[in-house]
Amino acid sequence: MNCVFCAIVARTAEASIVHEDEHTLAFMDIRPFTPGHLLVVPKRHASGLAQLDPEDGRRVFAVGQRLAAALRDNGTDLTGLPTDGPCADGVNLFLADGAVAGQEVFHVHLHVIPRTAGDGFGLRGRPTMPRRPDLDYLAGAIRRRLG
Amino acid sequence: MNCVFCAIVARTAEASIVHEDEHTLAFMDIRPFTPGHLLVVPKRHASGLAQLDPEDGRRVFAVGQRLAAALRDNGTDLTGLPTDGPCADGVNLFLADGAVAGQEVFHVHLHVIPRTAGDGFGLRGRPTMPRRPDLDYLAGAIRRRLG
Ligand SMILES: [Zn+2]
Ligand SMILES: [Zn+2]
Repeated sequence: MNCVFCAIVARTAEASIVHEDEHTLAFMDIRPFTPGHLLVVPKRHASGLAQLDPEDGRRVFAVGQRLAAALRDNGTDLTGLPTDGPCADGVNLFLADGAVAGQEVFHVHLHVIPRTAGDGFGLRGRPTMPRRPDLDYLAGAIRRRLG
Repeated sequence: MNCVFCAIVARTAEASIVHEDEHTLAFMDIRPFTPGHLLVVPKRHASGLAQLDPEDGRRVFAVGQRLAAALRDNGTDLTGLPTDGPCADGVNLFLADGAVAGQEVFHVHLHVIPRTAGDGFGLRGRPTMPRRPDLDYLAGAIRRRLG
């Protein structure tokens, strides 16, 4: 078994764990975009969303929501100095499914990224403004595939 | 009522809808990062994760997972040309909670963003590599807040 997140779940690899329950584990990302950056994983291995038990997906999101609340309201300055003052002013949830989407570890994981002004993190890209008929056309194609 | 997503749910504002059920609605983002970029919202208004019924959060994620499957395997070229050939090679799920995190509409929404090589979308930021004691320190602070 060479999945690093399975190894963390099995406690044969090191991690700084913040939450564990029957189905999920949450721990610090070792390459954080911002201080306090967390990952939530299902304990059961699933390489991507297509392999993920939808119930595990729901659980992972629910833990992400709880962690977001803790990060936004934790009385701990995420620079590492305990304080009763400000902490994260916002949170991003992010999940990459597939190498082209930036997935690097092929065990589903939800990023929970605390945000403060000027932290340098964000999205890269240039939104377009398609005409409504083009949006309707794509929506129809996706609806048909959903069945 | 001046929430655009509530207006879409109420069908008083236009949208290109791909999925509807009792609790959620999914439709095309009008400023897509890539063709096929979708949003999933809970029908019940919640300005942010702190206001979101956790059960609605689970439902939103479950719909996002289904949409990701449709985008990755839909036999429709997302440039808009029907085809049996390649479609999205990956998907990103993204949620912004708070203005500093990039939230622009204050009704919770999950972005479902189809990805292909060279599409120009991605994350902006510079990961750091903290020492384990620093990660353990932050993990402890977050654990205490989770209770
Ligand atoms: Zn694994
Ligand atoms: Zn609303």
